[in-house]
Amino acid sequence: MTLFASPPAAAAAACDVSAAWALQCTAFDAPASDQLRVQADVLVCVNAQGVIEAVLHQGDPRRQAAQAAHAAAGTLRSLPAGSYLLPGMVDLHVHAPQWPQNGKALDVPLEVWLQDNTFPLEARYRDPAFAQRVYDVVVPTLLANGTTTAMYFGTVDNAGNQVLAERCLAYGQRALVGKVAMDEPTQCPPYYKDASAAQAVADTQAFMEWLRAHPANAQQRVLPVITPRFIPSCTDALLQGLGDLAQRTGAHVQTHCSESDWAHGHVLARTGTTDAHALHRFGLMTRRTVVAHANFLTPEDVALMARTGASVAHCPLSNFYFANSVFPARTGLQQQLGMGLATDISGGYSPSMFDACRHAMTAALALHEGTDPDQPSSARGRAAQGRPAKIDHVFALWLATAAGGQALDLPIGRIEPGYAMDAIAVDCLAPDSNIWLWAGEDSDADVLQKIMHNATRANVAQVWVQGQQVHART
Amino acid sequence: MTLFASPPAAAAAACDVSAAWALQCTAFDAPASDQLRVQADVLVCVNAQGVIEAVLHQGDPRRQAAQAAHAAAGTLRSLPAGSYLLPGMVDLHVHAPQWPQNGKALDVPLEVWLQDNTFPLEARYRDPAFAQRVYDVVVPTLLANGTTTAMYFGTVDNAGNQVLAERCLAYGQRALVGKVAMDEPTQCPPYYKDASAAQAVADTQAFMEWLRAHPANAQQRVLPVITPRFIPSCTDALLQGLGDLAQRTGAHVQTHCSESDWAHGHVLARTGTTDAHALHRFGLMTRRTVVAHANFLTPEDVALMARTGASVAHCPLSNFYFANSVFPARTGLQQQLGMGLATDISGGYSPSMFDACRHAMTAALALHEGTDPDQPSSARGRAAQGRPAKIDHVFALWLATAAGGQALDLPIGRIEPGYAMDAIAVDCLAPDSNIWLWAGEDSDADVLQKIMHNATRANVAQVWVQGQQVHART
Ligand SMILES: [Zn+2]
Ligand SMILES: [Zn+2]
Repeated sequence: MTLFASPPAAAAAACDVSAAWALQCTAFDAPASDQLRVQADVLVCVNAQGVIEAVLHQGDPRRQAAQAAHAAAGTLRSLPAGSYLLPGMVDLHVHAPQWPQNGKALDVPLEVWLQDNTFPLEARYRDPAFAQRVYDVVVPTLLANGTTTAMYFGTVDNAGNQVLAERCLAYGQRALVGKVAMDEPTQCPPYYKDASAAQAVADTQAFMEWLRAHPANAQQRVLPVITPRFIPSCTDALLQGLGDLAQRTGAHVQTHCSESDWAHGHVLARTGTTDAHALHRFGLMTRRTVVAHANFLTPEDVALMARTGASVAHCPLSNFYFANSVFPARTGLQQQLGMGLATDISGGYSPSMFDACRHAMTAALALHEGTDPDQPSSARGRAAQGRPAKIDHVFALWLATAAGGQALDLPIGRIEPGYAMDAIAVDCLAPDSNIWLWAGEDSDADVLQKIMHNATRANVAQVWVQGQQVHART
Repeated sequence: MTLFASPPAAAAAACDVSAAWALQCTAFDAPASDQLRVQADVLVCVNAQGVIEAVLHQGDPRRQAAQAAHAAAGTLRSLPAGSYLLPGMVDLHVHAPQWPQNGKALDVPLEVWLQDNTFPLEARYRDPAFAQRVYDVVVPTLLANGTTTAMYFGTVDNAGNQVLAERCLAYGQRALVGKVAMDEPTQCPPYYKDASAAQAVADTQAFMEWLRAHPANAQQRVLPVITPRFIPSCTDALLQGLGDLAQRTGAHVQTHCSESDWAHGHVLARTGTTDAHALHRFGLMTRRTVVAHANFLTPEDVALMARTGASVAHCPLSNFYFANSVFPARTGLQQQLGMGLATDISGGYSPSMFDACRHAMTAALALHEGTDPDQPSSARGRAAQGRPAKIDHVFALWLATAAGGQALDLPIGRIEPGYAMDAIAVDCLAPDSNIWLWAGEDSDADVLQKIMHNATRANVAQVWVQGQQVHART
């Protein structure tokens, strides 16, 4: 692991009272999977556009003047002892409408879970009042857990999707919201599907235009996403229509890809190729595509995705339940596969990206070591085969922040000039904190490791998106 | 899964104002691995000894009178809407002295972790002031997370162990505390080991006698445990001496057993047999023995443990890091192996037994499904071999409560007459709660499932041990 204490000198721009405000703190981020950056006692200067303008270290000749100027102007803030600045979490895959069933019905197979639990629930969001009741909980809950950016699956009906987008705008969360498209009659229940491929494409386009032109969305902080549910639930005509739309508009795309043995086999049988190649054929594999899961990518799929610049939303918790395997994140990274991290609510039950980081680590360890003590160690896991799969807390932090920003092609996920001030203050001394700092003995790197292993919502004291405070712990 | 709404009629004894207090609530517990018991709107009557005397259901003819009498006497309490009673958590394996390094140094192999991190830390507890500083955090932290009973490894030095026992007595936690015995010079550092086998046995006995006679311990709420660290760090003479002590006193025993490929192989090479059989030979495998991990038990080991009534402390989180495999809990249960659940701080980083429950589920899923997508599903996991390993949230709750009580041979872990009132109130509506109850749509069983998947320390509102409130959320 590389630790670098200072950012590249070129990156530090001016920071004076023209910056909107400045935050004195110690900041942690992970610009790469093996790089923990500790910026100890720095002044993070945020401009009026909510962008980090400079990170001034002790010893920087501009530091003292900038700090004094902000103090005089009343725009100097600082984190108390025991609190640390981290990039906001980027959750690449959340089914917002599934929140009411979050944490239940996890003991049934995917097909039952979809048909008996999920589809009937999602169908209710055509009622905007129902949508508002739920989304008024989902968005603040994710913010309170430190998720500054969420890539949301909505529902088939735009009435509900508009409520979701407006709740994101109202609460100040950066978000990508997708109208779910699904029209394949053999896979979709009659009460919850698009009327036709053409109608689904038209509704997707209408939602995109509505959201882009929304008066509260001048900054485009909430973006539309083209969202075929997954190949099995979409006709070829729908996939082609959405692919054309993606090519024409350059909009983000999200879908599910090669999640389980069943899904992988079903697409192979139907299309004669893998999910990744089929999506590519339809024009849906772009630089702004995020596919959830992708556990069963072939080497050719990985190469294709690396070439197109598409990314994987790794959903380690829901994979335990529904994917029959662990997504090999380390191997994917070695092969230049873009990726980020996700909760996959409600396939995964935790709204905390800190939990997602921890599940990414335990899942990777299970893949690395194997699981069955009855097997000889030489056959048990990938480690014995010379294919290490383990990831550590720095890799997990990178996955949840900088990598997610890169997957979305957005300047988020780092505490660095030029990046949006999307960040969280983690308070290790919070009343319900399970993090205990060992004064005088823990290094800054130790503190970050302790945060990654035990931070919960109770530790998330403040949350900023684009420089605005959008949550403060009560 | 069996749901039974009412306890056996014979179990309901009288409940009047002679009971010390009564609690009106809905209670969940798991008397068996596949039994969720929902006791909806009951009156839990607790006697002056802190034992549950009766659980009176709606419709029980004695209910109304008992409730009125307690109300008149000012001894009626009730949980608010959104709060539920669960048995207190029983953590079968905690290294209390390792708390300062909890959540760090998890990226190194077991041997390095022991020699470079753990042993130097544990050696510091010969200073009672250091011990008090740490144990004044450990015990309240576990209580705040809902752990009403903890089985603690202490350190070699009794000065520190006495502080730990006294902190448990002071904070009201039920606990089992062991003086760690380790004398094998090739495995123990010179600065942190017992001077001799005889000295270690004498110190163990002295600690037992001191604790049993402690003036604040008349109820024996804190019990001593005979604690050989693990076979590799103990000479045969020490193991035999401690085994004799166990046989003579009937005291609890704890140690580590067949945790990893290394440990399993090391003991085989040294003793010519497995950990379990070697421990048995030394007299250390008793009805009150709890061995941590035990991932690599042979079928003969399992049969031996079932015969002796000894139990396993399943440590799913630390297993991911240090055990090269997953403990097959479901298989063990089928073979009458006693077991319970544990955090294994700091081999596992979370002090929350709710986290341990969740890790037990994800670990079991990884064993069930396998992990490597490159393997055919027929070869990947135990499910494909007809050896299901999956466990659900009810199994996990049972493991963390009733099973732990049974492993310890103590009347704890159930909300049932004759059991100690060791319980927690889980507040789903707490300020930092990630549990969202869907009013009118979630059944009681759904609520319990949501609790098991998302409860954190922030949800633990009140904690009772032996009928006394020992923690309340601030
Ligand atoms: Zn999904
Ligand atoms: Zn241990």
